[in-house]
Amino acid sequence: MRRKEFDVSEQQEIETFLKGQTFGFLGTTAPDGSSRVTPLNFVYFGDCFYFHGSLAGDKMKHLKHDNRVSFTVAEEYALIPSYFSDPELACPATAFFKSVMSYGRAYPVTESCDKAEALTHFMEKLQPKGGYDPISASDPRYTGNLKAVSVFRLVPDQLTAKFKFGQNQPQEQLKSTLEALTHRNQIHDAETVENMLKYCPYHLE
Amino acid sequence: MRRKEFDVSEQQEIETFLKGQTFGFLGTTAPDGSSRVTPLNFVYFGDCFYFHGSLAGDKMKHLKHDNRVSFTVAEEYALIPSYFSDPELACPATAFFKSVMSYGRAYPVTESCDKAEALTHFMEKLQPKGGYDPISASDPRYTGNLKAVSVFRLVPDQLTAKFKFGQNQPQEQLKSTLEALTHRNQIHDAETVENMLKYCPYHLE
Repeated sequence: MRRKEFDVSEQQEIETFLKGQTFGFLGTTAPDGSSRVTPLNFVYFGDCFYFHGSLAGDKMKHLKHDNRVSFTVAEEYALIPSYFSDPELACPATAFFKSVMSYGRAYPVTESCDKAEALTHFMEKLQPKGGYDPISASDPRYTGNLKAVSVFRLVPDQLTAKFKFGQNQPQEQLKSTLEALTHRNQIHDAETVENMLKYCPYHLE
Repeated sequence: MRRKEFDVSEQQEIETFLKGQTFGFLGTTAPDGSSRVTPLNFVYFGDCFYFHGSLAGDKMKHLKHDNRVSFTVAEEYALIPSYFSDPELACPATAFFKSVMSYGRAYPVTESCDKAEALTHFMEKLQPKGGYDPISASDPRYTGNLKAVSVFRLVPDQLTAKFKFGQNQPQEQLKSTLEALTHRNQIHDAETVENMLKYCPYHLE
């Protein structure tokens, strides 16, 4: 995250990326100070991340011990082979990707009505076609499950995004990469080209 | 990782999964005890994970302070909508996925010839078509870059895998899910069905 040219600061772009990603990776700290990285489905709304799961397990023990957490979401768009810009050396081989990293504190969501709201956001994101009765704390068919499920909220005090699409490449290399990607045309390559044009405009005019 | 029915213990299956994944998420601990989750390309060989990057940055500071790390790789195969098995309640909505979590210590790879070996594994994995001159510490075109790049090795003392494909579902629900996935036939659905048949054989005879 050190290289400023990769930083993305527009909240709307970050939210659009997060809406399109179904899962991310939660970092927690064990009582002995070691780390744990847990993959989790998530939703992001009201400037917070929400997770759900069981009330047991190591992750929950960690959160009770220390509720400072980190959460990272990433998607790789393209592996860029070295020969796109150099016929001899392996050095230019790289990957283009989007990532969002956040740091903050995790708090349990304890009220059934608040759990129902968060789980409704989960369903709207992960099952957009619907096909279920609304989740409500007043529906007796949901009461038991709402009590049993653990929901927690990550309130970020830092949220940064890195969208890497060749911003650090010299113009000639960038042009070669763009042409080679357009020609390769694998899955996501067209989207990668769009992102290159968006995030490296000063290079590609 | 608590539910034993999801555990996969065959080393070969774990390695096959890791070979197919280009990046994972490294958990490190800051001097103040908070966690950080960094997405990184990786290779796994000789029972170790290898990473490369810059010598600067927060992640490297964390490793110098405390070299205990965790590393998690995950792939989501399918979101399973609740209506696959229940026409009313949202509760059965879930995700099928494979994940590998490891814990261990990270050590810098300092010798140029060892860095060249690790980076060769990276290239073979991420650029299998070749198209570059062999990375060698004795090739003067690579000497400077080999000195400048940071390579580190994660030696796992714990490595666990969770492949979740409905092993916890009752037989009737599993059959509904299998039929619905076969019918839906989105990208990865056929592969998900294969994994269900592989990991839930006692349910689907």
